[in-house]
Amino acid sequence: MPVDHTIPPTEGPSSAVSDPTEVPAPPADTHGPALPVLSPALPRRGLDSTELRFRGGFWGRHQDTNSSVTIPHCLAWMERLGWIENFDVVAQGRTAARPHAGFEFVDSEVYKLLEAMAWDFHRTGDPAADATFRALSDRIVAAQDADGYLNTCYGHDGQASRYSNLSLGHELYCLGHLLQAAVARLRTVGDDPLVEAARSAADHVCRRFGPEAPGGLCGHPEIEMGLAEFGRATGDIRYTEQAELFVRRRGFRTLPPPVLLGSDYFQDDVPLLSRTVWSGHAVRALYLAAGAVDIAVDLGDHALLEALDGQWHRTVSRRTYLTGGMGSRYADEGFGEDFELPTDRAYCETCAGIASIMVSWRLYLATGSVEFVDQIERTLHNVVAGAVSSEGNAFFYANTLHQRGEGTVTEPPSPRANSAFRAEWFDVACCPTNIARTLASLGSYSASVEDGRLALLQYATCEIRTEVGGAPVALAENTDYPHDGRIRIDVEEAPKQGVDLRLRIPSWAEGATILAEGPGVGDLRSSSPRRVDPGWVDLRAHAHDRLELLLPMSARATFPDPHIDAVRGCVAFERGPQVLCLESCDVPPPTDLEEILVDPSTVADRASGDVSVGAWGLPLPHAGSAAYGPAVPREPHPVGPVTLIPYSDRAERGTSAMRVFLPCSPSSEAS
Amino acid sequence: MPVDHTIPPTEGPSSAVSDPTEVPAPPADTHGPALPVLSPALPRRGLDSTELRFRGGFWGRHQDTNSSVTIPHCLAWMERLGWIENFDVVAQGRTAARPHAGFEFVDSEVYKLLEAMAWDFHRTGDPAADATFRALSDRIVAAQDADGYLNTCYGHDGQASRYSNLSLGHELYCLGHLLQAAVARLRTVGDDPLVEAARSAADHVCRRFGPEAPGGLCGHPEIEMGLAEFGRATGDIRYTEQAELFVRRRGFRTLPPPVLLGSDYFQDDVPLLSRTVWSGHAVRALYLAAGAVDIAVDLGDHALLEALDGQWHRTVSRRTYLTGGMGSRYADEGFGEDFELPTDRAYCETCAGIASIMVSWRLYLATGSVEFVDQIERTLHNVVAGAVSSEGNAFFYANTLHQRGEGTVTEPPSPRANSAFRAEWFDVACCPTNIARTLASLGSYSASVEDGRLALLQYATCEIRTEVGGAPVALAENTDYPHDGRIRIDVEEAPKQGVDLRLRIPSWAEGATILAEGPGVGDLRSSSPRRVDPGWVDLRAHAHDRLELLLPMSARATFPDPHIDAVRGCVAFERGPQVLCLESCDVPPPTDLEEILVDPSTVADRASGDVSVGAWGLPLPHAGSAAYGPAVPREPHPVGPVTLIPYSDRAERGTSAMRVFLPCSPSSEAS
Repeated sequence: MPVDHTIPPTEGPSSAVSDPTEVPAPPADTHGPALPVLSPALPRRGLDSTELRFRGGFWGRHQDTNSSVTIPHCLAWMERLGWIENFDVVAQGRTAARPHAGFEFVDSEVYKLLEAMAWDFHRTGDPAADATFRALSDRIVAAQDADGYLNTCYGHDGQASRYSNLSLGHELYCLGHLLQAAVARLRTVGDDPLVEAARSAADHVCRRFGPEAPGGLCGHPEIEMGLAEFGRATGDIRYTEQAELFVRRRGFRTLPPPVLLGSDYFQDDVPLLSRTVWSGHAVRALYLAAGAVDIAVDLGDHALLEALDGQWHRTVSRRTYLTGGMGSRYADEGFGEDFELPTDRAYCETCAGIASIMVSWRLYLATGSVEFVDQIERTLHNVVAGAVSSEGNAFFYANTLHQRGEGTVTEPPSPRANSAFRAEWFDVACCPTNIARTLASLGSYSASVEDGRLALLQYATCEIRTEVGGAPVALAENTDYPHDGRIRIDVEEAPKQGVDLRLRIPSWAEGATILAEGPGVGDLRSSSPRRVDPGWVDLRAHAHDRLELLLPMSARATFPDPHIDAVRGCVAFERGPQVLCLESCDVPPPTDLEEILVDPSTVADRASGDVSVGAWGLPLPHAGSAAYGPAVPREPHPVGPVTLIPYSDRAERGTSAMRVFLPCSPSSEAS
Repeated sequence: MPVDHTIPPTEGPSSAVSDPTEVPAPPADTHGPALPVLSPALPRRGLDSTELRFRGGFWGRHQDTNSSVTIPHCLAWMERLGWIENFDVVAQGRTAARPHAGFEFVDSEVYKLLEAMAWDFHRTGDPAADATFRALSDRIVAAQDADGYLNTCYGHDGQASRYSNLSLGHELYCLGHLLQAAVARLRTVGDDPLVEAARSAADHVCRRFGPEAPGGLCGHPEIEMGLAEFGRATGDIRYTEQAELFVRRRGFRTLPPPVLLGSDYFQDDVPLLSRTVWSGHAVRALYLAAGAVDIAVDLGDHALLEALDGQWHRTVSRRTYLTGGMGSRYADEGFGEDFELPTDRAYCETCAGIASIMVSWRLYLATGSVEFVDQIERTLHNVVAGAVSSEGNAFFYANTLHQRGEGTVTEPPSPRANSAFRAEWFDVACCPTNIARTLASLGSYSASVEDGRLALLQYATCEIRTEVGGAPVALAENTDYPHDGRIRIDVEEAPKQGVDLRLRIPSWAEGATILAEGPGVGDLRSSSPRRVDPGWVDLRAHAHDRLELLLPMSARATFPDPHIDAVRGCVAFERGPQVLCLESCDVPPPTDLEEILVDPSTVADRASGDVSVGAWGLPLPHAGSAAYGPAVPREPHPVGPVTLIPYSDRAERGTSAMRVFLPCSPSSEAS
C-alpha cells in the first residue's frame, strides 16, 4: 500500500540548526531546561537533551529509531487515514460534506506526535524535522475557532455540538495533549503559532469550565496534566487552578457513565483525595494521578500528595505486573481488584505503562524516593522497550505476560489490543504516538539535578553536561547495560571541591559493587570494589575520577506473592532490569509451551549471554478427558534446558506463544 | 417504586382450565407431547409436563417460584421500562414521536417470557395466566407489519430501516425467539394468533433471506434454532432448510464486525463444519450449535453432527468451568483459549449455561450418550439454580467462581454483568427470561423415552405417567436430592412383561448402589444393595416394584487439570451434583477470605448436612511491600474448620466475597 507521506517544508525561521551529531545549543529565545516536567516548586528536575545525550547503547538506539522510523511512520499513518486532513476539513469549512475520520479522539494522536517531534528536534536540531513540524502545526492552528476552541469532531457544521458528550467526547482530553505539545515547543523553541493556539485554547477552557461557569469535566483525564504544565511553562497560575478545579470536581458521579460501564470507569465514583488505590480505566486513572501530583506540588496540597503516594504504593504492590504493567482487564482497559493479575489477559496497555512512568517520575521529583525510579526502570525496560518493534514500525497496545497460541497476523489497522503481534497501526492509536513522545524525551528521566547534587537514575551510554550548584559538571557514562552490568562513569569536569553524585542501585541488584579510581574520589577510593546496597549511593567525585559500578547480572528466579491467584505455583525469571520469557519457538517439539514446567534452581547464565532453565513436560490432556477430578495428574517427562529471552524481545521472530510465569516442576515446589 | 403491572384479562377461549394441583389434560386441539425439542428424526424425546410433574422438592420449588414470582416479575419490569409498550407504539404508528425503549433486542425478552408463560400454563392450567398470555400476545401481534416483518426497533417511521445492521440489529435473533414462543404455544394450545404471527414472520424470513434472495445472516444466532423447531412443529421443511442456509452462510466474514471486535465474536470467522472448538461470544456460539444439531438431525447431516460432537468435547474439557459455566472473558462475553479459565473474571453468563444445556440436550437426544446428561446436571445445579435468587426476583447475569471483595449493591437496572449480587433487572436482560422459560419447561429434561425404554435423567421428586412402547407406565420418584442421595422409585403401572428402565448414575457417583425390591425386579432383585458404576444402569421393572438408588453424598475434593493456570495449586469441593464455595461471612475474623488455604484431606460432612474443611491463613502483605521477590513467603497460621456452602446458595445472606477454588495449604501439596 504505497503512500506519499511527505509534507512540503514551509519557509519559516529555523532555530537551532546544527550538526545533528553535536549537541545543539539551546534555542536563543527560550530560557531554562527543555523538559516535560519542570516546576520551581519541585526540589529537583531531569536533564534535557542538551544536558544528557545518549551515545548509542540500548536507549540511544531506541531513540534514534524513534527519530528516523517511528515518528515518520506515525505521521504517514495519520495522513493515510485522514486524521490530519480532519484539521484541513475544519479549516476549510467542509465538515458538513466530509465526515470526521477516525474515533473522536484522534486529534490527540496528532498532538502527541507534535510533542514527540518537538522534543526530538531539540535533540537533533534537524531543520527538515522542524519544517515538518511547522507545516503540520500550521494545519492544526488553521482549524482553531475564533474563541480558542479546537476540535475536529465537534462543534462545526454537521457535527455534534461542543461538549455535548463530556463522558466520551474527549474534547478536553485532546486539548490537554495540545497543551503538552505546546509546552514541548515553548521550552525547546519558544513562542510560536502552536503555543499561541494552545494559549488561546487554554483560555477558552478556563472561560468555559472556570469557577463561574456551569461546571463539567472530561471523561478522560489529561487536561489536568496539560493545564498544570502549561501553567508552569507560561508562569500563569490560572491554568494550574483550572486543573485543580477539574480534579476537585471529579468523583461525584456527575458524568453520565458509558453504556454497560459505571462511573468507576473514568474515576468519577470517588474523589481522588478519598481514594486508597487506583481503579477503573488504567490510563485515565494514571493521567489523573500525574496531573494531580503536579497540582499538589504547585499549590502545596500536602494531603493530596500524601494520598497519591499511598495510592501508588498499594497499586504497585497489589495491582501491578512484574513488568511494571498496569491494567488487568480487557473489558474496560482497567485495573482489577487487589491481586487480580491474570497473565494471559493481562492488559498492561502501553499507554498505562507510560502513564505510570509519568506518575512515578513526578512522585520522584517531589519526594526523591528511589522506589519510584526503580519502578520507572522496570516499566521502561519491560513495557515501553518491548511495545515497539526493533525496527520501530510496529507496536503492542496490550502487553500480556502469557500469549496462548501463536495467533495470526491480520492486516493493519488492528482494532486495538492484540497480544500476538506488534501491529503497524490501530484504530485506537494512542500507543504509537505515546511511545514516540516518551522515547524522544527519554533522556529527561535518566538523571536529575537538585540542590548541589547530580543523580544518575537510568544507566545508559551517554554524555552529561550540566550545572550542579551553579558549577559546570561533565560526565561520560559507558555501558552495555542492560546486557551487561558494568557501568563506567568518567568525571570529565567538576568544580574544584568536587561534585556530589548519587547513584541508584536498583532494588534487584543485591551484591552490586563500586570501584572508584582517580585523584579525587573520597571515601570510596579503594583498590578493590566496595559492595553497595540497593538504594542510593552518595559520593563526592572530582574531575578525572573514574567510577565503575558493577551490577550483578546473573539470571534470577522471581516468585510472586502467593495471593496472586493467576501465578500461584509459578516462577518468573529476570536478568538485570529485564524480565525474561519463554517463547514456543524455543521449546523443542513435540512438547507444547503449555506443557512446560521448570525447576527454578536450575536457571543458568550461558556464556553467550543467554539464560536457560531446566524444563519438564506435563502432557496436555486429550480433548474429551475430564478437566476436573479427584486427583491431579502429574507425570512430567524431562525436556532438558530451554532458552529464555528478554520479554521486550518477544514476537521478534514471528508470532509465538509465550509465557513469563512458568509452573514449577513438582520437584522444585519447596522453593 | 410502585408500578401497576396488572394486565386486564381479555375475553377469549380458555383451554385446559383445571384444578392447578392436578395434572391438566393436554389441550384438545394439539397432538403429541408438548416439548421444546421434538423431532421424528430423533430416537428419543423428553417428557412434557403432563407426563412428568414435579411434586415439591428442589426443582419443584424452583418451578413453583418461577411461576408465582419470576414470570410476573419479568412482566412487571418490561412494562415498567416500556419494552412491551414498544409494540403498542409500532401498532399505533407512533414510532416517530416515541423513541424505542431499551436496547435493540428487547423484543426477544418479551418473546422469551411468552415462551415461559406458554410452558408454564401447560403445567398449571391456570386460566388467569392464559389470559395474561393472550393479552400480551395480542399487543405483539398488533405490531406486525403486513408482510410478516415484526420488530419494534427497525423499519418504521423515524427508525433505521429493516436489516440495515445485520451485525448488531438482532432482528432475526428476535424473530427466532418469537418462533420458539410460537412452538411452545402450538405444542401446548394449538394454533392461535401468536402462532399465526410467527408463521407469517417465518415466511417473511424465508422470502427475504432465502436461496434466491440477496443473502444475509444475523450477528446473533438464534433464528436457526427457532426456524428448525418451527419447521418441526408445523411440519414445514422450508423452515428447516432456511435455518440450514443461515448456518452454511456463516463463517465467511461477510458480516461487518462490531467496533473493536472481530468476526470471531459472532462466529463469522470460520464455518461451523470446520470448527474444532467453540469460540467468540459464548451465547452466540452455543445457540448456533444448538440450532445446527437440530438441522443436522433433521436433514441427516452426519458430518455436521460429528463436528458438533467434537466441538462439545473439546469445549467441555478445555473451556468450561467446574460449574458447567462457559465463557471466560468479560470483554466480549466470550470463550477464551483452551485452559483460559480465570475464576475471578469467569463470565459464565447465565444464558450461556442455559444455551449449553440446549446443546447438550440435543446431542443427548441424538446420541443417547450419558456424558451430555451429566453435563446438563452440572450446569443446572451450579449455573441455573444459583442464577436466580431463592425468592425468584433477582438474578445473576455473570456467574463468577471467585468474588473478590464484597461489592456493593446498586439500584436496578444493573448494566449487565455484576458478580457481587443478584440484580432485580438488567439493561441487557436476556438472563431472567431465559431462566423463566428454562424452569417452566424443566421437566422435559428430567426423563426421556425411546423405543421401549424410559430413562430417568435428573433426579427429583416427581410423578411420571407416559407411554413406553405403546403401553402406559407410571412411576413415583421421591427424593430430597441434591441434599440427600437416596432416590426411591415406585413403579405404579407397567405392562405385564415389565418396562425397561434406564437410570443415570452421575459420573461423580463412584460407589452408588441400587436396592431393588418387589415382585418383578429381574436380575437386580436382592436383599442387599448392589453397587453400580457411573453411566447407565438398565433394568426391567414391573408394577409395584420399588427401587432405591443411593448416590454417595460425602463431600469430595476436586482438583483441576494442572494446565488450567488460574487454579493451579487449588482445590474445589463438591457434594453430589453441587459445587461448594466458601463465603467471606463464613471466615472467622480477622482472617480475610483471600488469606485462606485449605487441606483437602480434611474435608468433612457434618451431621447438619454442612461441609467443613480445615483452613489456615496466610496473611496478606502490607500495602507497599514487594509483590515479586526471590522467595515465596509462607507462614500460614491455623484458622480451624470453615463451613462450605453450595455455590448456588451464594450471596443469599447479603453480598459476600466468595471462592470456589481454594489454595491448598503447603502441608497438603502432595495431594
